[in-house]
Amino acid sequence: MKLNILRLISMLFLLTGPAAQASSEIETLIDMLHQNGTISDAQYARLQAELGERKIKNNQQVISLDKQRLQAKKSSDVEVSVKGAVSVKTPDGAFTTKIGARVMADATAYKNDNNTMGDGTKIRRARMSLQGKMYHDWAYKFEYDFATGEIKGIADAFVEYQGLDAMSVRVGNMKDPFSLQFQMNANYNLFMERSLTNGLNTGRHIGAMVFTNRKNWTASAGLFGGAVQTVGKEKDEGWGLGSRVTYAPINSQGSLLHLAVSANYRDAGEVAILRFKQQPESNVSGINIVDTGNIAKVDFHSKYGLEVAMVSGPLSVQSEYVTASVSRYSAPSLAFNSWYIQTGYLLTGESRQYRQGKFGKIAPRSSVGNGGIGAWELGLRYSTINLNDQNIMGGAAKSLTLGVNWFATSTIRFSANYINVLQVNGGPLESVHPDIIQLRSQWAF
Amino acid sequence: MKLNILRLISMLFLLTGPAAQASSEIETLIDMLHQNGTISDAQYARLQAELGERKIKNNQQVISLDKQRLQAKKSSDVEVSVKGAVSVKTPDGAFTTKIGARVMADATAYKNDNNTMGDGTKIRRARMSLQGKMYHDWAYKFEYDFATGEIKGIADAFVEYQGLDAMSVRVGNMKDPFSLQFQMNANYNLFMERSLTNGLNTGRHIGAMVFTNRKNWTASAGLFGGAVQTVGKEKDEGWGLGSRVTYAPINSQGSLLHLAVSANYRDAGEVAILRFKQQPESNVSGINIVDTGNIAKVDFHSKYGLEVAMVSGPLSVQSEYVTASVSRYSAPSLAFNSWYIQTGYLLTGESRQYRQGKFGKIAPRSSVGNGGIGAWELGLRYSTINLNDQNIMGGAAKSLTLGVNWFATSTIRFSANYINVLQVNGGPLESVHPDIIQLRSQWAF
Amino acid sequence: MKLNILRLISMLFLLTGPAAQASSEIETLIDMLHQNGTISDAQYARLQAELGERKIKNNQQVISLDKQRLQAKKSSDVEVSVKGAVSVKTPDGAFTTKIGARVMADATAYKNDNNTMGDGTKIRRARMSLQGKMYHDWAYKFEYDFATGEIKGIADAFVEYQGLDAMSVRVGNMKDPFSLQFQMNANYNLFMERSLTNGLNTGRHIGAMVFTNRKNWTASAGLFGGAVQTVGKEKDEGWGLGSRVTYAPINSQGSLLHLAVSANYRDAGEVAILRFKQQPESNVSGINIVDTGNIAKVDFHSKYGLEVAMVSGPLSVQSEYVTASVSRYSAPSLAFNSWYIQTGYLLTGESRQYRQGKFGKIAPRSSVGNGGIGAWELGLRYSTINLNDQNIMGGAAKSLTLGVNWFATSTIRFSANYINVLQVNGGPLESVHPDIIQLRSQWAF
Repeated sequence: MKLNILRLISMLFLLTGPAAQASSEIETLIDMLHQNGTISDAQYARLQAELGERKIKNNQQVISLDKQRLQAKKSSDVEVSVKGAVSVKTPDGAFTTKIGARVMADATAYKNDNNTMGDGTKIRRARMSLQGKMYHDWAYKFEYDFATGEIKGIADAFVEYQGLDAMSVRVGNMKDPFSLQFQMNANYNLFMERSLTNGLNTGRHIGAMVFTNRKNWTASAGLFGGAVQTVGKEKDEGWGLGSRVTYAPINSQGSLLHLAVSANYRDAGEVAILRFKQQPESNVSGINIVDTGNIAKVDFHSKYGLEVAMVSGPLSVQSEYVTASVSRYSAPSLAFNSWYIQTGYLLTGESRQYRQGKFGKIAPRSSVGNGGIGAWELGLRYSTINLNDQNIMGGAAKSLTLGVNWFATSTIRFSANYINVLQVNGGPLESVHPDIIQLRSQWAF
Repeated sequence: MKLNILRLISMLFLLTGPAAQASSEIETLIDMLHQNGTISDAQYARLQAELGERKIKNNQQVISLDKQRLQAKKSSDVEVSVKGAVSVKTPDGAFTTKIGARVMADATAYKNDNNTMGDGTKIRRARMSLQGKMYHDWAYKFEYDFATGEIKGIADAFVEYQGLDAMSVRVGNMKDPFSLQFQMNANYNLFMERSLTNGLNTGRHIGAMVFTNRKNWTASAGLFGGAVQTVGKEKDEGWGLGSRVTYAPINSQGSLLHLAVSANYRDAGEVAILRFKQQPESNVSGINIVDTGNIAKVDFHSKYGLEVAMVSGPLSVQSEYVTASVSRYSAPSLAFNSWYIQTGYLLTGESRQYRQGKFGKIAPRSSVGNGGIGAWELGLRYSTINLNDQNIMGGAAKSLTLGVNWFATSTIRFSANYINVLQVNGGPLESVHPDIIQLRSQWAF
Repeated sequence: MKLNILRLISMLFLLTGPAAQASSEIETLIDMLHQNGTISDAQYARLQAELGERKIKNNQQVISLDKQRLQAKKSSDVEVSVKGAVSVKTPDGAFTTKIGARVMADATAYKNDNNTMGDGTKIRRARMSLQGKMYHDWAYKFEYDFATGEIKGIADAFVEYQGLDAMSVRVGNMKDPFSLQFQMNANYNLFMERSLTNGLNTGRHIGAMVFTNRKNWTASAGLFGGAVQTVGKEKDEGWGLGSRVTYAPINSQGSLLHLAVSANYRDAGEVAILRFKQQPESNVSGINIVDTGNIAKVDFHSKYGLEVAMVSGPLSVQSEYVTASVSRYSAPSLAFNSWYIQTGYLLTGESRQYRQGKFGKIAPRSSVGNGGIGAWELGLRYSTINLNDQNIMGGAAKSLTLGVNWFATSTIRFSANYINVLQVNGGPLESVHPDIIQLRSQWAF
């Protein structure tokens, strides 16, 4: 449709272009003819009158066109784009809305001694999201995971005030500021599942957070209540505090050094129960490889995290260490910990992108469908978690993962992971160390 | 993008404007020169031929351009706008679609004698909606509440025929026509939660309704089956009839008197069970302050409601009285009742808007983000409900609520409510009268 | 808005059109005057210089406009349309997204001897969908049914590679390739519910499928894992293979002969449980009229289907036969079967449309809202299922259905069905043969 208008305009131009401002030649010519005596004074006066009338008419039409132009600008004259996601934006950028979605479908085969995990398939995530900006300074987001279901499926659901220079303020349901692999969108994690360290993760809570994103550093701190699915009834849900600070002394295209620390405190409320558990970097069978079960009489717990990551061209390295200590009423405190190190290499030469204290989207140099082969990436990870302490024997596990990612386009990804659980001491799956092969297809925008 | 086109057009205009219809001067001049004998008959004839050819060519191009213009009009040439919500509309208005959403995040602290309600947070509502018009005369709406979950989360889900002058017909899942506070969109209620009177509300049912909305009155009547989550299995679900008539003898901008009556009859079906319950104008802990429990052997029940509301500039007053009588098999009938009165004052001078028999959106005079401070409103409410009758002791409660609303923009609201439950006689929380403070952030479009 | 631009353009044209290329007349005239000696050599030179300058300026402006036109083309210049569904498309068709939805609201009355089914209402389906194309060769779809709820509500959720000539490849959650009535969108089935034969249907599974759609034939074959809601925990979920081939020797507008075979094999995995059940072509009460209960110790089962369908103008006929055989560990095999035949007649003269091996949308010749009466269709069906074999007495049922459909527009349908369950031998509802009347309102796009 727009192209038709452009064609109209160019046709108009071809029609009218060469004639442009011919009037001045005519005026010149008329003056000359008058001077030469070729045309009489009466004829000259008549021509001048006609020219004068035309100028007035033209001016009126200019004014009228200008008015119409202004009205056109005022009307709902938005920019629409589609790249899977549909984005709509007012010309002044005061209002934007993006409709997004993603689906991950997994298939997994487990090989283990005493058949404790079943082969199967799963829709790992199936999400829709709405996000954007309103009245210049307000941002909002809502994302729901249909694969998680019911209230628990509510992921990000917040409003943000961005009108201050120093920082932004976010209120609603959001991720606590903790851990690089957790902050990253699962679409772009190096492996299909986050490392065993995710067993000491914070999850999302309803609360308020202030944050700043600068070129070389970010800082965020928040005060949180319970998770969306928590209904306390007679009991206080508990509350938490969290903060994460990142620093990137090197941060240019294809070259990065990222350092970060985070801390999280959580009061267990009157519910006073806490549980740490983790699946074996595979999410299909629903079996946890380590699991403390419900720890009762918990007063509070705190977690600390250290992060380091680097990029050098196609190579990326990322490592985190997390420790959790649990304070109990009338029982000794507990200490758990976990760490991982992983490295990825983009065979097709792209670099992992870094923004706002975390890695983002992989954009292949050439997409399948545009004559390219997409981006190919290899990854290797070692991770370990220890949930054994005092009378709590949640288990200690070590795991090695090998992965290959094919980003066929910036919106379509296929991944294969081989996970070798090296060792499990204690916990529900003592001495079980399955080999796991899993496949994923993913579209996301 | 459109601005580019406008710039092109204005450039074209500057190029071509002053030359406009120069041809007539040329024709005049040529005639003059011919009359003066300055140009010969042969020269004159040649010029006339050239001018004639051009006119034919121009006419052909006008016709060709007109054809292109017509084709352009025929193509899918829709109007898109975004103000949070994305709206799309065909130029003739025959088809419209609006994609909307809203999220309310609450935090609540309860103070009470014997600790019967726990502090906490909650995503109170998280909805997406699609609504619009098709083929001129058909309207549709679907709205889902992710915070309620599963089938129960289906809110409005109907189709409407608007092609009749006298009334419209709606079929699907919808609110029964009952009670002003219930008809109003929760986004714009004066307080975070509807009054205790909501404990005698009807809820939504699947059915058919006819209705008329006029300037000074509205009327609606419907025949309904069960609620979306009801699965009767072997038993009839029951059915209901409802009607509401509103009259606004005064109804101009900033000045309103609203009167209404509604009646609702519901056959209890073969399930024959009925339950009235209500939370303490706070929805986070999940605790009911009054609750009849399941009343068995119910034949039918009927409800009547009276409404009065007024607006005078920034001041609004609203009151409702509802009575419910329950007819039981082989047991005496029951009678319950409830009423509230509330008043609001918009400190920033806006008036509550009234349309189609209920209050609507608050549009601040000046929005935060456009250099303004939004709209600020204070509210005060007294409400009471009595669910004690015969052998049923559901409890009788009285409550006082103080609220402040900040509509930062027409789409973003923050509220704080202080609720003082004055008295509870009988019911699950006999003698408990908590003080409650609750906060809400809301975005809605 | 666009219309404003067109008005601007046409105004511009009226302004500038008649003057088009007036310059050549001026040049001619100037030359003549010079030849006549009316203007001097000096005057002539000055006029030529002015004309030359203008030509250079015009050329520069043409170049500048061309650049702007090119930039405009490059920008996110998409086509948006709305017909209930909102569709967005890049001009090259490389990216498309369609936002769709549908709601079906049912009301049902059962009449039966010993009151085994209750009257009631139901939101039968309430779906939203996102589908489209990315990077030319990739298609995606996600559809969720809010009336089914939670993970089970995930319907289609797949990505497709369409870059090969021979076939397309689909990965994710999708319908197994089996049975005409199952492949068809429920929006356009002749009756409100699929026939009793749906009791031997395959459902959707997570897996991968290759398929080809040609003018006169289609073929598809897939390898599948479990259903979305299956969580195997310790047990393998099982897997399946399926294929369907269709052939349409006659296939022109209003004239069709369709023949098809399909086969499906499913390994019961370590769960080893299988259940066939079916409601009485009515879905409101939630009561199954035949039901094998859980069949234990199942090794695998296989199904075969035969299809024949025809269209002759407004008349359509459709029939399917399905047989299922179940292989059990240490128990005799089981054999079940089912078939139906149905015929429809479009009173308003439309024909059922056929595409890609199944019937599609009904587009009324004239819509209600555009001055028409929509499309009216009558249907008659006989169907039977036998789930009795060996020690399994799931029941054998026969059913006769009479239906009328009113497609008021291509997006709005109202249906009424009368179902007479003729006979039930064995199973949970032995000797119960209810009469059922049910109504549906539907909007879908």
